[in-house]
Amino acid sequence: MRTHQLKLAVGAGLLSLICNSAFAEDDLSKLMQDDNQWASQRKDYANTGYSRLSQINKGNVGHLKQAWTFATGVNRGHEGAPLVVNDIMYVHTAFPNNVYALDLNDNQKIIWSYFPKQDPSVQALLCCDNVNRGLGYGDGKILLQQNDGTLIAFNAKDGTKVWEVKVVDVKKGESNTNAPHVFKDKVITGMSGGEYGVRGFITAYNIKDGSLAWRAYSNGPDTDVMIGKDFNKENPHYSALSVYEDVSGGNVEGGSFKALDKSKLKFPEADLGVKTWLKPQAIKNGWEHGGGSTWGWYSYDPTLNLMYYGTGNPGTWNPDVRPGDNKWSMTIFARDLDTGAARWGYQMTPHDEWDYDGMNETVLWEAQGKKLATHFDRNGFGYTFDRTNGTLIVAEKMNKFVNWASKIDLASGVPQKDPKFSTHQDYDAKGICPSALGVKDEQPSAYSPKTGMFYVPLNHVCMTYEPVESKYVAGQPWVGSTLTMFAGPEGVMGGFMAWDGLKGKSVWYNKEKFSAWGGALVTSSDIVFYGTLDRWFKAVDAKTGKELWKMQVGSGIVGNAITWSHKGKQYVGVLSGIGGWAGVAMNLGLNNDTDGLGAAGGYRELTKWNAAPGGGAMNVFSL
Amino acid sequence: MRTHQLKLAVGAGLLSLICNSAFAEDDLSKLMQDDNQWASQRKDYANTGYSRLSQINKGNVGHLKQAWTFATGVNRGHEGAPLVVNDIMYVHTAFPNNVYALDLNDNQKIIWSYFPKQDPSVQALLCCDNVNRGLGYGDGKILLQQNDGTLIAFNAKDGTKVWEVKVVDVKKGESNTNAPHVFKDKVITGMSGGEYGVRGFITAYNIKDGSLAWRAYSNGPDTDVMIGKDFNKENPHYSALSVYEDVSGGNVEGGSFKALDKSKLKFPEADLGVKTWLKPQAIKNGWEHGGGSTWGWYSYDPTLNLMYYGTGNPGTWNPDVRPGDNKWSMTIFARDLDTGAARWGYQMTPHDEWDYDGMNETVLWEAQGKKLATHFDRNGFGYTFDRTNGTLIVAEKMNKFVNWASKIDLASGVPQKDPKFSTHQDYDAKGICPSALGVKDEQPSAYSPKTGMFYVPLNHVCMTYEPVESKYVAGQPWVGSTLTMFAGPEGVMGGFMAWDGLKGKSVWYNKEKFSAWGGALVTSSDIVFYGTLDRWFKAVDAKTGKELWKMQVGSGIVGNAITWSHKGKQYVGVLSGIGGWAGVAMNLGLNNDTDGLGAAGGYRELTKWNAAPGGGAMNVFSL
Ligand SMILES: O=C(O)c1cc(C(=O)O)c2c(n1)C(=O)C(=O)c1cc(C(=O)O)[nH]c1-2
Ligand SMILES: O=C(O)c1cc(C(=O)O)c2c(n1)C(=O)C(=O)c1cc(C(=O)O)[nH]c1-2
Repeated sequence: MRTHQLKLAVGAGLLSLICNSAFAEDDLSKLMQDDNQWASQRKDYANTGYSRLSQINKGNVGHLKQAWTFATGVNRGHEGAPLVVNDIMYVHTAFPNNVYALDLNDNQKIIWSYFPKQDPSVQALLCCDNVNRGLGYGDGKILLQQNDGTLIAFNAKDGTKVWEVKVVDVKKGESNTNAPHVFKDKVITGMSGGEYGVRGFITAYNIKDGSLAWRAYSNGPDTDVMIGKDFNKENPHYSALSVYEDVSGGNVEGGSFKALDKSKLKFPEADLGVKTWLKPQAIKNGWEHGGGSTWGWYSYDPTLNLMYYGTGNPGTWNPDVRPGDNKWSMTIFARDLDTGAARWGYQMTPHDEWDYDGMNETVLWEAQGKKLATHFDRNGFGYTFDRTNGTLIVAEKMNKFVNWASKIDLASGVPQKDPKFSTHQDYDAKGICPSALGVKDEQPSAYSPKTGMFYVPLNHVCMTYEPVESKYVAGQPWVGSTLTMFAGPEGVMGGFMAWDGLKGKSVWYNKEKFSAWGGALVTSSDIVFYGTLDRWFKAVDAKTGKELWKMQVGSGIVGNAITWSHKGKQYVGVLSGIGGWAGVAMNLGLNNDTDGLGAAGGYRELTKWNAAPGGGAMNVFSL
Repeated sequence: MRTHQLKLAVGAGLLSLICNSAFAEDDLSKLMQDDNQWASQRKDYANTGYSRLSQINKGNVGHLKQAWTFATGVNRGHEGAPLVVNDIMYVHTAFPNNVYALDLNDNQKIIWSYFPKQDPSVQALLCCDNVNRGLGYGDGKILLQQNDGTLIAFNAKDGTKVWEVKVVDVKKGESNTNAPHVFKDKVITGMSGGEYGVRGFITAYNIKDGSLAWRAYSNGPDTDVMIGKDFNKENPHYSALSVYEDVSGGNVEGGSFKALDKSKLKFPEADLGVKTWLKPQAIKNGWEHGGGSTWGWYSYDPTLNLMYYGTGNPGTWNPDVRPGDNKWSMTIFARDLDTGAARWGYQMTPHDEWDYDGMNETVLWEAQGKKLATHFDRNGFGYTFDRTNGTLIVAEKMNKFVNWASKIDLASGVPQKDPKFSTHQDYDAKGICPSALGVKDEQPSAYSPKTGMFYVPLNHVCMTYEPVESKYVAGQPWVGSTLTMFAGPEGVMGGFMAWDGLKGKSVWYNKEKFSAWGGALVTSSDIVFYGTLDRWFKAVDAKTGKELWKMQVGSGIVGNAITWSHKGKQYVGVLSGIGGWAGVAMNLGLNNDTDGLGAAGGYRELTKWNAAPGGGAMNVFSL
């Protein structure tokens, strides 16, 4: 059997060598333009989560009803979404990351399935629940990025393995939760471990055979970070050595940081991935364990041939033991897809003191003739860039409760920190908004070219944050902070809003009892779909936010809503199965306020709405 | 907290001593008559699974749609059904038998929950998956019978523990999967372990305080079996010493058993629970490990004050090593509820050679002025009794593929075995129909007084059966047979039928791809609901069997359909979560044909329709 499968795999390999190598690109971009399919996690290269399907419209969405459900038989957080390609739906699960190919032409009969045999101990490396953000598709292959770092390409039709590579080294505390993204002829995959003292990187593999194309680190010398020739050419100040001057000692209790004017910045500097980790670090060469992991959503502009992604928090969470800006953690990078060379890089939160990972999605769009990129950062600011060169156009608070910084100076790009909310070792900083999970975490926003608006699932959580001493041990948690979380000033834990990416303003805003931890979908009929942790799958009016329909599904939603059509009928679907950071404490039965990196206290009420742990299922609706 | 709960419990106890002891009865029987509630596993004492609700009717059932779903976060077989009492739904799960009280007035918010801490090793004692057939209700208490034998009474309103007793001894291989049944002021609970050499019994506890009322064994001396004074008075031949004469040596390859005429039977005899275990047994005093467990559904007639239940297979499955009729395995007993004294007992399958447990439900009904009881036995015959005295009125094959016996002689009550299908040690008997899981297993039928028909979920499975030598070791499996299962002559594994209990005839019959392993519900609007292992929840016309509606739920259904109404709206619901004997092999990932006591081979195709293991959920539908 094994031999037989291997033969098949080799056969497919040979065949594809003969075929035109441009096929992969054509294949996927064609599928992305076909709204009957959902071939990529966020629908398209631009990460819009937008579909032109409009059979389900404002007039009939109230009649939406269950079409079918598929329980995955796996508990815990089900993030991401299935893919729909050529009448097959590919469903993934939380750890152990099972895969099911369901035949939409035959009542979802299982065509093939895959049950990874992963070492269960890898679960201990996942900071924020056993999540997996879904599969990738391209070149006739389904890509699975297992939590243990194994990246597998399957023949999409029959599930035979085509190739397999190991992306991370679990012994170093590295793991994976991200979805593999197929861009043209490459598979891009990141890694996790910002809470385990890893050194972050992102990797491109050739989709044909799994061979390595390039790997770019988030920190270290410019060669490792793959800083390109033209890097930050138009915004050389993004490459400044230090954007703050210390106030009252800086990295000590009572100390804080004053933003420098652009005129005072020294730039451009080289090797910032080393030089912005000033002495003394918690560990010799802090950048070697400096985090900046890459577990989010990536986007791609085929015309510019640039791909965009963000890096996570610097390690450890105790800022005092890593003086300096800690580049390139908390950074949006634009890289040439073919070479990996960084074209531009902008650090959202220099010298992070709050775990405001910068890995949230970057959505590509056009307005006023400009090629733009919008990013809703954990730190609570909504950024719009000129994506050709990284020039910052807009950076506004997504909610006025954001208090760690008063504003982002557009000229310098530097956040103006509020000394009241600086965090320091053995000092319990209070009332910081947003909490570490950000005004928004991994749950992706959607963008409608029709309304010109972004649709953004939100957290509304504040925190106390007490950095503590913590020793680095390879493969062990290296967090260095104790947190509690609580509802923000509006008395709720979440919300959902429409956002004008040019004005940097919320257009409408709905409160939610808990974080809206699932990704948004918007359709050309101006309906936005998203899920909630208290088990509602909702449809709201894209223009007003008015609720049009809702359904109580089996478990809290941390998956992303998708839509497709089959035999002329539009379907909407979403994975349920509560988890992720917000749900990890309840999934594990943890009860102390500070358990689950602070989620246990803040999200205690989730156990009033969810069985624990959460059972995974794909929920499908149609008219 | 503990102390506080104890105080509350004592308080409640005192209070109830003061109150009229008839309250418990009134309370539950009132609730049973209120069709807005579903207060008992099979709706009423009579086990009808019948509801007078008719808002959902043939005209509108096609518009039935999902109202809400609740994923239990527990995998494996979800048998039984939630209870609905006073606007609260009580949901149970497979092992570890979690309990959730959902507030139907507040979007199913969890009022209280209970997470038993059971020794995981008890799972190894469950022959046929980690099932639990649900909760009981009475006297303001919710009763939970855990797999490890712990029976707990909770205050239904707030979940405080009122009392707790240990029903079985897991060290002897005993366990529990049955639902506790509340009859008047008693909680009746059985036990499992027919595949572990247990000695079967059934127990009555006083619902007030959990004190023991009585315990009756399935084998052993008459005092232990609690044979009453009038036992089998009208049918003394049911108490014959032996109903067969050996042919060609009886318990050896080539041997078989010829039924004796009633005229040749010796009766009544005493202590048959000892005397029908002829020498030599596999073990000294075979009856001491003679099985006859009591894991099914029980019914109760308040007027006669008789309760009805069936006993399971004799241990071991190898018949050659337990010569004799092996009483009172495979028996329907009618017992006085107050005293436990047996009023009558009829053995369906004397000297079982096929594991045709007699524990299926007995449904009480009236026709032609007679008090009747109908029972669809694993052995493939549908029996109707005069329930006042056990007189056999009808015993007919439920499907013509039943071949182990040609018929049941009504005069003697004895099945006329076909020697071709006798089973013997080290001989692989072929083509036996039905298989060990019977023409029907635990999945309960429903009865409509309106149509006068029974609605019966069916297996259509045949087998090979090879008894083997097996040594008894306390607490270890003691099966003594190797099985394979395969589809019966109709080429399918299951079906569903309407049955006339007086004529002993099928009225209509639908084939099913797999066993219909979920229990049936019938309403006064003549709609029958049931679920299938390939994930369909169906509504069919009670008169014709015509399919009126179906929905694909998350996992295969082994739960029982129920209905209730809330704020004037009728709901229908069913637990999904594949498992039970049919699903155990796929849940455990077993692949050899004989794995899962033969289920692996027969039900291999289930993995084409279900994620393995099956994820549990309560699925609720309304108009
Ligand atoms: O730094 C990291 O490597 C890392 C990894 C992950 C992850 O892989 O899930 C999360 C985070 N950080 C994190 O900060 C965070 O808020 C978070 C939320 C979630 C989630 O799935 O809900 N994962 C993660
Ligand atoms: O003899 C026993 O004690 C015993 C117990 C059980 C059980 O407790 O589930 C089953 C059986 N036998 C059995 O024979 C059988 O067919 C069966 C099916 C199932 C099920 O839940 O699907 N349980 C059992």
